Amino acid sequence: MAEARRPDTTFWVDPAEIRGDHLTLSREESHHLIRVHRAAPGTPFTAIDGAGTAYECFVESITGDVVTASIAARDPERGELPLAIALLVGLPDAGPAEAVVEHAVPLGARRIDFVVCARSERHALGEGKLERLDRIARAGAKQSRRCRSALVTSSLSLEEAIGALGPGPRFVADPWGTPPPPEALESSQTMISLAVGPPGGFDREEYARLAKAGFHPISLGPSRLTTETASIALLSVIRNWLLRKGLGQI
Amino acid sequence: MAEARRPDTTFWVDPAEIRGDHLTLSREESHHLIRVHRAAPGTPFTAIDGAGTAYECFVESITGDVVTASIAARDPERGELPLAIALLVGLPDAGPAEAVVEHAVPLGARRIDFVVCARSERHALGEGKLERLDRIARAGAKQSRRCRSALVTSSLSLEEAIGALGPGPRFVADPWGTPPPPEALESSQTMISLAVGPPGGFDREEYARLAKAGFHPISLGPSRLTTETASIALLSVIRNWLLRKGLGQI
Repeated sequence: MAEARRPDTTFWVDPAEIRGDHLTLSREESHHLIRVHRAAPGTPFTAIDGAGTAYECFVESITGDVVTASIAARDPERGELPLAIALLVGLPDAGPAEAVVEHAVPLGARRIDFVVCARSERHALGEGKLERLDRIARAGAKQSRRCRSALVTSSLSLEEAIGALGPGPRFVADPWGTPPPPEALESSQTMISLAVGPPGGFDREEYARLAKAGFHPISLGPSRLTTETASIALLSVIRNWLLRKGLGQI
Repeated sequence: MAEARRPDTTFWVDPAEIRGDHLTLSREESHHLIRVHRAAPGTPFTAIDGAGTAYECFVESITGDVVTASIAARDPERGELPLAIALLVGLPDAGPAEAVVEHAVPLGARRIDFVVCARSERHALGEGKLERLDRIARAGAKQSRRCRSALVTSSLSLEEAIGALGPGPRFVADPWGTPPPPEALESSQTMISLAVGPPGGFDREEYARLAKAGFHPISLGPSRLTTETASIALLSVIRNWLLRKGLGQI
């Protein structure tokens, strides 16, 4: 019996599993769709590829534990801001790193780089930890109905992290800065880069390096924020700035 | 032997334990100052009373496990915004409620009310849970070097929550609103009230009730945010608005 109720959940589809107007879900996503949402041939659902497109689909067939679906409509950039936001975060502990990813992905971060700093751990995040953060990022993209996830990386140095950024406005959280936004945003720019220090803060040399790379110091207010709270606050402020400029309207 | 290094930590003092230019720390705070920071008579430290004043102190005596200190200077409103921010949050589960308090207190919330809504649990938070959230709020105030903590409450209804608010601008997170800030802030106002729906969202009737109470609908962007992410994002945006208006500068 066909069950036509649309699941409230968004499903994840690997871009490699999209062929013309058909897509195949992974075993895990298929299981969730079939068992939790009791999907059957004909059930409508939404999938995202994490790379910029949402798909409105109907279950076509269930073979073994794998769902194949037909694509009825494509919705590019659904839930996305018009500019990519990259977030450099001075490497914190595992819990705070997870909190950053959990909140920053729904708020529109497209890249999150946990960077080894003078006052952080000396080792970048390993494969296992990055995989875990990547799963949290995907869950955040699905939950928030974005169609892109964030690329989560861990640079060995601030130089390496800065070198990977695109052109565009750059801001660093700095108690001695001024409240953002301090300058006009030009629509020709495609990436906004934000930097937040590790739990011990950036040191003098790091602030100088960021200034040289064009990072404008901005203050988040009169109290001291943790790395994770500052990351979410800075991202929220810059996201709102984009929205007020009419660049990120629905 | 006197140890003169100032602990990086801020200590909590009950307002009832301040008498003239002397204060007495609780057994727990004393223990932390003596054991972890190895304080001795003469050690300087900072205490906050959670009610609006920071104190620069010197350890005077240690009797049993209790520290008595002399107050060298008082710093009223240190780390505070000039306006009180009250946050009404549709009652979420325990984890998200803790995340809201953990991030909202450093960002300047002075009241956080977890409100029973049509689409939330039917029971307000009990004593035990409120005490736990109160401890998280105090830790957040100490960590962020504010001198006020937030009053954490749990109202049985939206009417009760609205009735407890002071006059001033009111904003509710609403996917159909516009990005804040939509209106001028008058300096005569003393409280900004923010409302964020429970995990299932406010229902139609609740949005109507909030509109009637003067809550202006504002959008936080094109993706769907959890109750906790929306609470932190809205607070960050409004905090930045106050800072840009020069009302909350250090």
